[in-house]
Amino acid sequence: MNRLAARLHICLGRLQSLPSARRSSGAIDNAHDPALTTICVQSALPALAELTLLYLNFVTVARLERNPTIKDEIQARGFGRDIPAGFLCYPAAQAADITAFRATLVPVGEDQAPLIEQTNEIVRRLNRQAGREILPEATALIPQVGRLPGVDGRAKMSKSGGNAVPLSASDTEIAAAVQRMYTDPGHLRASDPGRVEGNVVFTYLDAFDPDREAVAALKAHYRRGGLGDSALKTRLTGVLRDLLGPIRERRAEIARDADHVMDVLRTGTARAKAITAETRDAVQDALGMFRF
Amino acid sequence: MNRLAARLHICLGRLQSLPSARRSSGAIDNAHDPALTTICVQSALPALAELTLLYLNFVTVARLERNPTIKDEIQARGFGRDIPAGFLCYPAAQAADITAFRATLVPVGEDQAPLIEQTNEIVRRLNRQAGREILPEATALIPQVGRLPGVDGRAKMSKSGGNAVPLSASDTEIAAAVQRMYTDPGHLRASDPGRVEGNVVFTYLDAFDPDREAVAALKAHYRRGGLGDSALKTRLTGVLRDLLGPIRERRAEIARDADHVMDVLRTGTARAKAITAETRDAVQDALGMFRF
Repeated sequence: MNRLAARLHICLGRLQSLPSARRSSGAIDNAHDPALTTICVQSALPALAELTLLYLNFVTVARLERNPTIKDEIQARGFGRDIPAGFLCYPAAQAADITAFRATLVPVGEDQAPLIEQTNEIVRRLNRQAGREILPEATALIPQVGRLPGVDGRAKMSKSGGNAVPLSASDTEIAAAVQRMYTDPGHLRASDPGRVEGNVVFTYLDAFDPDREAVAALKAHYRRGGLGDSALKTRLTGVLRDLLGPIRERRAEIARDADHVMDVLRTGTARAKAITAETRDAVQDALGMFRF
Repeated sequence: MNRLAARLHICLGRLQSLPSARRSSGAIDNAHDPALTTICVQSALPALAELTLLYLNFVTVARLERNPTIKDEIQARGFGRDIPAGFLCYPAAQAADITAFRATLVPVGEDQAPLIEQTNEIVRRLNRQAGREILPEATALIPQVGRLPGVDGRAKMSKSGGNAVPLSASDTEIAAAVQRMYTDPGHLRASDPGRVEGNVVFTYLDAFDPDREAVAALKAHYRRGGLGDSALKTRLTGVLRDLLGPIRERRAEIARDADHVMDVLRTGTARAKAITAETRDAVQDALGMFRF
């Protein structure tokens, strides 16, 4: 069950509208095996809403406001006290997303780690209230490479910010994105020594170039001078084209078969419905709630 | 549909546990006609949770905090910023309770009127977002007699406060409750003139004594002096025994038939499930959400 759950949470992105569900076809790879991965439509799982409302009773307003992820977003979006209540309550909704599938391992960016902490606080309170372990705690699985910066060097990639490399990027788009990448502003001539730290091209090479030794040699060369940005960028363009090409092709192939996409969503959602309803029942029973 | 809804909302008390559901058997009178009144278990209606979560996006935290009912309760319960988030979000849950049944008339105490206002604000925002009227606004139906005070003269009756006259009270309990009723502390001798205003016995006589003329005569007599509290209380005891006796007997009769109670709840909940799910579907469609 826990292995299933650890695979399930990956599909919990919020698909709210048909167009966005259609766009999500990229997530349904040919390698998708319904026995291993359940892809579902969150808004079609009422048990998540029921659990969210219950969890809101296990967390205070003050605690939600202290959540760093929420705090950052409130600042970034320019909300004051006039934040929508749904936004403040988001951590409880995420706790429902995670616990409804009894997930024990949740792959997230490091910025999301406080939300996993928040989830575990709710889980502990609920278990204490129930007098036994109803829900498992979850561990954040944070990728070693950390969060990839935007091509402009800003901390976060964002499609709307225009500093992202989308998974669907064409070879031309990949080259253009790499061309715009932030390197070392002090590295004016190829012969100058350059900085590797904070150099987005190296961050991406570290993340994606399968040849670790070659990357180490490039770093040494760049640091002592004599290696131009354009040579580096050409290498990274090749690495990203090799990486994204097959993904893009599978995506296009799958997108041509809308019926298949809908089938996968339908089957997955039915399965997720059963799992999340089971958790809701267990939680309601544990809290002594009346059920039919 | 609107007539149905206006009858439905009366059953929206939160029955959370089996014992409290059993206690609610008093609500299921012999006169209960399932064609007119639907009695349902709120926690078995997932669409209410789904609507609540949606509505939380149509109200700000600041607005919820300004809600007078919530403000009063926060003070009364001694919550600071450490109120449970579920408590702050209660007005959105109540908006779901009302709108899910498309209720247009909601009988509430005057202290609950701000919650109906809050519901209508959410309804207007949602309709504006949808570009057409998805949900109707509701009107508070506030009884003319206002809220009955506790027997001790405090503003609110409460079972836990021990100042209530429960619907299930026996004849002896009715007499004892009336005996403790707050009258006019300045009315020491029967011959003294007495105050009618703020005199709980008169408040109850105004509310329940079918003989308006007799009550008017008693008031005049009390004001000019010569009418003792005990005579008044004897009259009120009789009025309340006549009122509550048949209710208590029907309640006991129904409580003996637990299967009937469960049948009524089951049938009503199934019906309410269909109605609330229909509203949820309409709201999700109006907001362009993806549904299966």
